[in-house]
Amino acid sequence: MADIATRVHNHNWKIDPIVRSLIDTDFYKLLMCQSVFRYKPDTQVQFSLINRTTSIPLADLIDEGELREQLDHIRSLRLTRGESTWMRGNTFYGKRQMFRPDFMEWFENLQLPPYHLERKGDQYELTFEGSWPEVMLWEIPALAVLMELRGRAVLRDMGKFELQVLYARGMTKLWEKIEKLRDLDGLRIADFGTRRRHSYMWQDWAVQAMVEGLGDKFTGTSNCHIAMKRDLEAVGTNAHELPMVYSALAETDDALRQAPYDVLADWHEEHEGNLRIILPDTYGTKGFLDGAPDWLAGWTGIRIDSGDPAAAAEVAIDWWKERGEDPTKKLVIFSDGLDTDKIIELHQKFQGRVRTSFGWGTLLTNDFRGLTKGDTLAPFSLVCKAVSANGKPTVKLSDNPNKAMGPKAEIERYKRVFGVGEQDRMEVVV
Amino acid sequence: MADIATRVHNHNWKIDPIVRSLIDTDFYKLLMCQSVFRYKPDTQVQFSLINRTTSIPLADLIDEGELREQLDHIRSLRLTRGESTWMRGNTFYGKRQMFRPDFMEWFENLQLPPYHLERKGDQYELTFEGSWPEVMLWEIPALAVLMELRGRAVLRDMGKFELQVLYARGMTKLWEKIEKLRDLDGLRIADFGTRRRHSYMWQDWAVQAMVEGLGDKFTGTSNCHIAMKRDLEAVGTNAHELPMVYSALAETDDALRQAPYDVLADWHEEHEGNLRIILPDTYGTKGFLDGAPDWLAGWTGIRIDSGDPAAAAEVAIDWWKERGEDPTKKLVIFSDGLDTDKIIELHQKFQGRVRTSFGWGTLLTNDFRGLTKGDTLAPFSLVCKAVSANGKPTVKLSDNPNKAMGPKAEIERYKRVFGVGEQDRMEVVV
Repeated sequence: MADIATRVHNHNWKIDPIVRSLIDTDFYKLLMCQSVFRYKPDTQVQFSLINRTTSIPLADLIDEGELREQLDHIRSLRLTRGESTWMRGNTFYGKRQMFRPDFMEWFENLQLPPYHLERKGDQYELTFEGSWPEVMLWEIPALAVLMELRGRAVLRDMGKFELQVLYARGMTKLWEKIEKLRDLDGLRIADFGTRRRHSYMWQDWAVQAMVEGLGDKFTGTSNCHIAMKRDLEAVGTNAHELPMVYSALAETDDALRQAPYDVLADWHEEHEGNLRIILPDTYGTKGFLDGAPDWLAGWTGIRIDSGDPAAAAEVAIDWWKERGEDPTKKLVIFSDGLDTDKIIELHQKFQGRVRTSFGWGTLLTNDFRGLTKGDTLAPFSLVCKAVSANGKPTVKLSDNPNKAMGPKAEIERYKRVFGVGEQDRMEVVV
Repeated sequence: MADIATRVHNHNWKIDPIVRSLIDTDFYKLLMCQSVFRYKPDTQVQFSLINRTTSIPLADLIDEGELREQLDHIRSLRLTRGESTWMRGNTFYGKRQMFRPDFMEWFENLQLPPYHLERKGDQYELTFEGSWPEVMLWEIPALAVLMELRGRAVLRDMGKFELQVLYARGMTKLWEKIEKLRDLDGLRIADFGTRRRHSYMWQDWAVQAMVEGLGDKFTGTSNCHIAMKRDLEAVGTNAHELPMVYSALAETDDALRQAPYDVLADWHEEHEGNLRIILPDTYGTKGFLDGAPDWLAGWTGIRIDSGDPAAAAEVAIDWWKERGEDPTKKLVIFSDGLDTDKIIELHQKFQGRVRTSFGWGTLLTNDFRGLTKGDTLAPFSLVCKAVSANGKPTVKLSDNPNKAMGPKAEIERYKRVFGVGEQDRMEVVV
């Protein structure tokens, strides 16, 4: 009888929900959200979903009704008692009560704000507007929904065994990557792949495979729900949206120049140890470090998320030396477009010179490249970013002009203010 | 509550039984059993399990207690009502009531006879004695148990995800074989892989993958339980044990020379159409065909199970022509050590010259070659054969001296009686 009941119950689902929890999101989103909730709760922002791989016609692949159902389902989610207990009671980065009671009370009552969805040609325009701490929580689930619906569209016509073999191939591919990594002495690597994952179940499988295959070398997952379910460390620090919004809010060029440091000053107030990680590339790494106050050199490390990662790590090492810091005590976190070979190369290159750690994203949780005809499951570059704050446009430059965002005139102004000259263009894979 | 109950129930299994049904066996065993039950019910036989790959120390790998538990479990099995209904009610080779009421009544009350198990060095000596129709039914389950226990021994120390990836690789490997075969026009292929399968579940998966991947080109499975469960054709005709036992029973050289034809005369009485398949190689194909009565040339086809398959098919084609038969109307079934490349080669070579069909065995249901370190899961050559009948030893020559069996003096006698000269030795893989 149990099977009949299960079957009827399952059949009662109107949809197969892609995101089933408000903490099926990146840990750093919650950290940043708490910071924003404290320092900038009333800022009005707009986030927008952007498909940088325009050759993938999302609106042709994905039914608008299905997309709306998934997004509506996310709006129906509330923080559960168990999730709240985990956030309140767990230790994060060795610290108890990382999330303060006032933030938790707000989060327990949160419903994600409405979304705006419109078809534009063969793409969707998906935007979110409202107060920053609410809107920012749309980013990860919105991306995960779009990625997974695209995958489902591709898989729809495959036979049962063809599908099984596809996943068998995917597992084999991932396991072979893990086998390559397991021999690296002193490797420290985490899952950063929530946003562009193939699916929740696939990410969960990837994380468990990392646990078995890498042991202590696997340091945790950015996905709070999986961290909770699998009793793992939830990891992550902060992202570009903080300097982007702080900068958009700056009234003058001087205030703009100062804004990225203001972000970290606020962060400095809140966090210590391994959470004091500089993300320097929003408006160019070199200029940011040159102009940085001395207290930033005392931070634990740096995250490298664009440009040539080895070159950026060298810049950081030189900077620490200039500021009288010992680089071998510092942490460099690589997190941009990583895959096995690049991880091995960077690990070997910097071993002994600086502590390294890797945040492995899309090519951990969504690498089905080469496994279907026409490579229809290859991951693509989908992002969801703050595009305006209190009505003013945001800008991101990064260390790779192919990742730049914002109105053209504003990009020029930011380049001037932050002293960014010529940059090397690098292909963005994911 | 259902899950708790399921878990407790599962935990109550003393063992994880490898063979769970008396019809988890090859269809031809049941056909032959019915024939033996009719013509030679009182013959006393001994069957013996022989590991031709002595480099695999079965007794070191497999715990004797576990082996006994599995064999005891098989002795506890009885034909179920549903299985009996299927055998009585189903159509086999287009025929209703293939199994006669007297046979079914006997089968419904059958318990397999006792076994004798003894460790000899690093191998087991496993023998079965009693009346032929009972003892013969041990062959397939005994082989399946030994093969699977060896596999379990190898898998015991693997982690959960390592195991998942192993199966993922196995599935991928099998699917790639199927993808190679699917483009062959006019291919007809069946599963003959019960005896040396990796496991029941794996065989079941392989069969279902063949259904999806090959469609009508897949003509059925030799495994009755899977045929029943998946609503497929159960296929198979007859095996060497019939001429081997008939020959052992022969009192004189003349009677011996006649014995293999007596087998087929009895078979002729019982079956027609696609069940009239000659298995000519027990004591050499050439001599068998040269001395065959004319009515045998009228049979539907021939099964080639040893020696060079293409050469044997040519011999058969020539023989049919000599006897005034049209080879293009005849069926050649290849069933010896097949894998994709050989199937493709033979299919292409004989297309248009003769009807062909393939009985794909071990390398369909147990090909994990190259997937573990030291190739510890590679299939090996395990057989279970009639070794004596009414106290007299049996002999098999086949078209490959590496497959010969029996006492040396008897082998020489059989070679003389059947006029077998020099033969080419061919490596036996499985």
